This record gives sequence, C-alpha cells and structure tokens, in this order.
Amino acid sequence: MALIVQKFGGTSVGSVERIRSVAAKVAKSFSDGNQIVVVVSAMSGETNRLIAMSQELQDRASPRELDVLVSTGEQVTISLLCIALESLGLKSRSYTGGQVPIITDSAYGKARIEKIRPDNIKKDLDSGSIAVVAGFQGIDSKGDITTLGRGGSDTTAVALAATLEADECQIYTDVEGVYTTDPRIVVEARLLSEITFEEMLEMASQGSKVLQIRAVEFAGKYGVPLRVKSSFTEGAGTLISLEGREDMEKPTVSGIAFNRDEAKLTIRGIPDQPGVAAKVLGPISEANIDIDVIVQNVAKDDSATITFTVNRTELDSAHEILSEIAKDLGAEEIIADSKIAKVSIVGVGMKSHAGVATQMFECLASEGINIQLITTSEIKIAVVIEERYLELAVRALHAKYGLETGN
Amino acid sequence: MALIVQKFGGTSVGSVERIRSVAAKVAKSFSDGNQIVVVVSAMSGETNRLIAMSQELQDRASPRELDVLVSTGEQVTISLLCIALESLGLKSRSYTGGQVPIITDSAYGKARIEKIRPDNIKKDLDSGSIAVVAGFQGIDSKGDITTLGRGGSDTTAVALAATLEADECQIYTDVEGVYTTDPRIVVEARLLSEITFEEMLEMASQGSKVLQIRAVEFAGKYGVPLRVKSSFTEGAGTLISLEGREDMEKPTVSGIAFNRDEAKLTIRGIPDQPGVAAKVLGPISEANIDIDVIVQNVAKDDSATITFTVNRTELDSAHEILSEIAKDLGAEEIIADSKIAKVSIVGVGMKSHAGVATQMFECLASEGINIQLITTSEIKIAVVIEERYLELAVRALHAKYGLETGN
Repeated sequence: MALIVQKFGGTSVGSVERIRSVAAKVAKSFSDGNQIVVVVSAMSGETNRLIAMSQELQDRASPRELDVLVSTGEQVTISLLCIALESLGLKSRSYTGGQVPIITDSAYGKARIEKIRPDNIKKDLDSGSIAVVAGFQGIDSKGDITTLGRGGSDTTAVALAATLEADECQIYTDVEGVYTTDPRIVVEARLLSEITFEEMLEMASQGSKVLQIRAVEFAGKYGVPLRVKSSFTEGAGTLISLEGREDMEKPTVSGIAFNRDEAKLTIRGIPDQPGVAAKVLGPISEANIDIDVIVQNVAKDDSATITFTVNRTELDSAHEILSEIAKDLGAEEIIADSKIAKVSIVGVGMKSHAGVATQMFECLASEGINIQLITTSEIKIAVVIEERYLELAVRALHAKYGLETGN
Repeated sequence: MALIVQKFGGTSVGSVERIRSVAAKVAKSFSDGNQIVVVVSAMSGETNRLIAMSQELQDRASPRELDVLVSTGEQVTISLLCIALESLGLKSRSYTGGQVPIITDSAYGKARIEKIRPDNIKKDLDSGSIAVVAGFQGIDSKGDITTLGRGGSDTTAVALAATLEADECQIYTDVEGVYTTDPRIVVEARLLSEITFEEMLEMASQGSKVLQIRAVEFAGKYGVPLRVKSSFTEGAGTLISLEGREDMEKPTVSGIAFNRDEAKLTIRGIPDQPGVAAKVLGPISEANIDIDVIVQNVAKDDSATITFTVNRTELDSAHEILSEIAKDLGAEEIIADSKIAKVSIVGVGMKSHAGVATQMFECLASEGINIQLITTSEIKIAVVIEERYLELAVRALHAKYGLETGN
C-alpha cells in the first residue's frame, strides 16, 4: 500500500462539476489500494474575488486580515471535496491549515512552514479515511491564520509528502506534464516522462510555469518524488526524479524555457572601481525588487557597464532608483528596455557535452537573432534577445537539439 | 467607559459598501469612548450560495463538512470589516469562532455554546483595539468547526456580552426596533422604546422576526441588556429591559404578533381515555416536528378531539404520521387545514388587568372573524383564525388597544 499526496490546483477545482471529477480521480487512486492525502487550492477566481472586495475597502489592507480573508477560499474547496467524496461512498475528513496543524512563522501572506504535526492525518489514514487538506495556508504560534503566498498549495503538498514520508507527491494541473517547451509555441513539443530535479528547477526559474520553484526546491531537499499530471486527461505525466533518468544516453538538452516578463536596465560609463556592482545593485535589492540576470563589463575607456534584468512590472521603480545611483556615481547614461525576452536551454547532459553553448549561439545567429546578454550555469544557458524574436528562437532551438524525438 | 457588543446581520454587511457603513457606525461608538466587540454574520446570500454548491454535489452532506463550508461566510465578513476599520485609522483584530475561542458541543449545524474564553478579546480591548468576531460559529473540543444554526449570530453576540459582562448588547438589523406590530400591515404601528424580556420572548415566539428566541432567552437568563437598532438609520431603537418599563401606568397590551407559517391538524372521534394526547402527539414530536398550539376537547359522545398546529412545511409529514395513529386509535377522521393564521396580543400589563381576553374576542367578533383555537399564557393570548382575516384582525386589535399612541 502506497501513501500518495495528490494536489489539485484552482483550475482543477474551478467548479462543482470539476470538484466531482477530482473526487472520482481520488476515488480511483484510493480503490487501487493507496492511502490518499489530497491538497486543494481555492476554486479558480475565488482568491481574486476576495482580494477585489478588500481592495474596494482599501489598497493596503493588514496582511493578517488578508490572510483571514483569502484562506476561506481553500476552506470552501476542502469541504466541497469531502462532500463529493462522501457521495461516492468514501470516508474523508477536511483539514484547514490550522487543523492539520501546519505551523508557520508569522509572515502573513508569505509565511514559511516551520513544522507539520502529522498525527491527526496519520490516524485518519489508518482508519481508512481520505484526508483533504487546504493548501496555501497554515497557523502561527499565536493561533493566527497565515498563507504561504502564491503557488503555496504546491509547497503544502510537498511539505506534507515529506512529513508523511509519502511514496509520491502528484501535482495535478491543467497540462499533461512537463514538455520540452511550451506546446503553444512549438507544436512538436514532446511530453517528458522524466526530468531531474535540477532540470526542473532551472525550467521553473527560467519561466516554465508548470511547478512553483519553491515546491521543487522543497521536494529536492527532502527527497520527495514529484509527479506532474493532468487533472483533465489520463496519462502518467512527468516524474521529477531524484536519481536522474535511467536511459544511458542522456540527451544534451532536455527542454527550452523562456520568459517574457522581464525588462532590462543598463547603466553605462561608471568609473570602474571595486564594489561598483554592489553600489548599483544594493539599493535595487533593498527596495525588494528581484534581479535576475546580471552582466558586468569594462569598456575601452576603463569605465564599467552593468546590465541587469528585473520583472517588467518593476521596471519603473528600478529605473527611478537607478537614476539616483547614476547621479551619485557620475555614470554617463541609463538605458531601459522592456521589449526583451529570455530564452534558456536546460539539461543535465550539458555537464558532459562540450560545445552546447556554441551550437546555441550559431543556431540563433543563423536565424539572424542578436544576443544581448548571456548567462550560464552547469545545466543551463540563458540568453536575452529582442522580444519579437522569442518564438522564432524557441522553435529553432527545439529543432536544433532534436527535442521533438528525444534526440 | 462602557463595553458594548454590537451585532450586525447579513443584510447589514451585504456588500462592501454596507460593510463600510458598519465600520463607520462602529467607529462612532468607539470614538464616543466605548470598548467595542463586533459580531457579524455572513454577507447576505453567501450562506445560501455555499449550501447550493454542496447540494449540487449531494443532498445529505456530512454536517461536519457543511460547517467547515458555511463558516467561511462569517470569516470573510470579519476580515473585510477589520480592513474597513483600519481604513478609518482604527486598530482592530478579527476572530473566528475557534480563535476566540467559543467552545461548543459537537452537534454540527446546531451546536450549543459550552464556554467562551474571553482572555484574548479582553487583552485586545484593553490595548485600545476593536474585536471583530465571526457570529454563528464555534469550535468543539476536538478542534472541529461547528455552527450554531440559523440565527446563531444573535446568540454569539449575547453569549459574548454575558461572558464579557458587557453593559449592552446591541442587535443591529434592518428594522428600527420592535414595533407594536408589523408596520407593513398597520401603518400606525409604533416603535417601542422599551419592552420587557417576557414580552419580547412572547413576541418572538408568536412570529415577530426581529430577534431570535434563543438569543432573547439567553439574554434574559444571563441578564444582558439587549437593544435592537437599525443598521441603516439613526435612532435609539428598542431596549429589551430586565426590570420592566419605568412608566407607572403600564399599557395592558404592548404589541400584536402574528404568524402565518403554521398549519392545523384535527383528529376527531378518538375514544377518550387517559394518555390519549400523548398517544397522538408523541409520535409527531419523535419525528422532530415542532408542535405549537394544542387544544383538546371532549365531544357530546364522550369522544375526544385534539387539534394542534405545526409549521406549514411539515404539514404533510405530520398528516402522514397522524393517519397511522388514527388507524391505531380507531379515530373517526383527520382534518388538515393550511389556510390558518395565528394572532396574539402580548403584554405584561395583562397580568393585572381583567377582561383583556374578552375585549379581544369581542373585537374579532365585531369584525366577523371566527376564532378556531385559543391559547393563553400569563402575558399573551393567541388565537388561530382563517388566514384571509389576518390583516383585518391585526389592524382591529391594534386600534382596539390604542397601540398607535401607547394607550
């Protein structure tokens, strides 16, 4: 008998009808002889509906009260799913975050899980019941309701799987699994039956929205086998494996990720001196603006140029801060560009294959695409290009590395 | 400095705009120098929306899960009201039933309050904060969410007021207070500035919907001064007083209550013998059907006739049970009538005034209204009449006792 944690997101439980289908899926796994813990999100649209009401009252609502408000979303789903399971003749019990309990710190709206006490759920499972847990939420040491922030339901599922030492944590979503790239851009995109944690982490951080980075990190850290599956169709989905794929001949590149949510800022003509990068980027980080790619170069006249990317929604605030810094440092100019995209090739095979980067650059060159920035890691090469070339670049690279057939 | 518990029902918090008005009312009381605990219901329509979803899944959902579901309604309101209070610059903190905690038994859907631990709220009030509590809900000793059943928010407010030894418990509603009768039927109906607990209890049990009987009973039992006020207009409302009205000359009759939700069943020609009433009514009560008026008489042939009223929605089930009983007892016939109404005159003054009943019967006779059943208590006389005469009877009695001017 295996213990499986199954997580269903907002779209999967977006209507009473869909909750009924989820119940049927859960019932199937249960009748296959597994112990099941289900983690659910709020019905799609519900969280936004609740937040809209609070915003009608005021823009900067107290984070404590916002958590009290939005946590009702998952609470509705857990009860409805239990009612649906009941109607199939199955025993189940719902748990709010506080009832598990999932104990978090007190950082309302972005709380971190500190501890899960699994005794209540274990007792339930042993008595032949299905446990249905509200994702995305917990309780702090004062008894206040907390939420884990966007995408937190994945984290809840993985954390529960780790605590319960589950055999598998299945994340049900509206796609069939992890693809070599977005099938909406490359029709030949292929479903991967397996991907390593490192690759998944890079895919996620490079813009693939299948799983939340935090959940993948968590699963990797605690050795929880993760599987991404579709809520709407049958199929084994993609296993995110701990030990790496079993096929001897690993493909060089496993997938192409991309992201068009970023914007680029360049500060040019800074007198080069030690610590200049910190001076430029420190105040941006202090304003809680996430910086992604960073490239620094020295020009002919020995002045430094620093280019970095931020989320496009934060371009204006970052630009403003950078203008102050430019004055202080006596920099020549600032160039802001929101029409960029990032394209990355990801694969553990890169570690042992030379020339992958060169292939990538040649491929883009042959399409007439200019590369603005390059960053690399052990298993990833990312380039920043003009946004209008994004689809062209993804298709060319997908073909170049033979991803439609698995090399 | 007074401690006031203020309760706002579903209509009063039915939209974000109305929650804003409630916040303004609370802010006014707070700035007058009072400590304030607010109890709120779910936004009007929300509870029904949630129940409709569960019914789409199945008719007889588990009571435990239904409570998890519907308790989200008040949880949404408490957070929104705190957010609204914040926007007025006021410190506040929301409490779910479990966070107070309001400890109940485990009778999901109709739980009874066992104990309230007021320390958290007291600490809040002492620090200059407003406490906003979810009505209608509690937590049992296992940590499960419970609800108190329909109208439970009034009970929450009164129970909190009793525990906190509040100076007044104010029930805000969509009427301005307690009237001598329903102003929709008698335009001359007058707002009562005061009414005694006994009278209020009779008015409520006779069909006046201003307050829930259970809350009135609770307030009487624990000596909590209750005041009914309007959420939408200014005004002192009606005080439900512990010591009786201060005016020396109490009016004989304080108000006219009525109820058209009942139906009448008569079983005729039962061989009269001791215990016959129990034989007839026992099985009805056992089926959880509430019986209101009961009248038994003996006919010329020494056979017994028993007439009683039940809620109109339960007429069919009661009729069915009664048919079985009639067979067993060898009764002659059963007559069912759903076209009845009950009209009651209520007033503590009746205790010391003779002839009140006679006045009532004469008044109805002069309007040509036949009385089908009569029941009396110390401070109430109720009659059952044909439904079509209801308005006529109420208007005639209201005039008869001079209620438009307070005698």
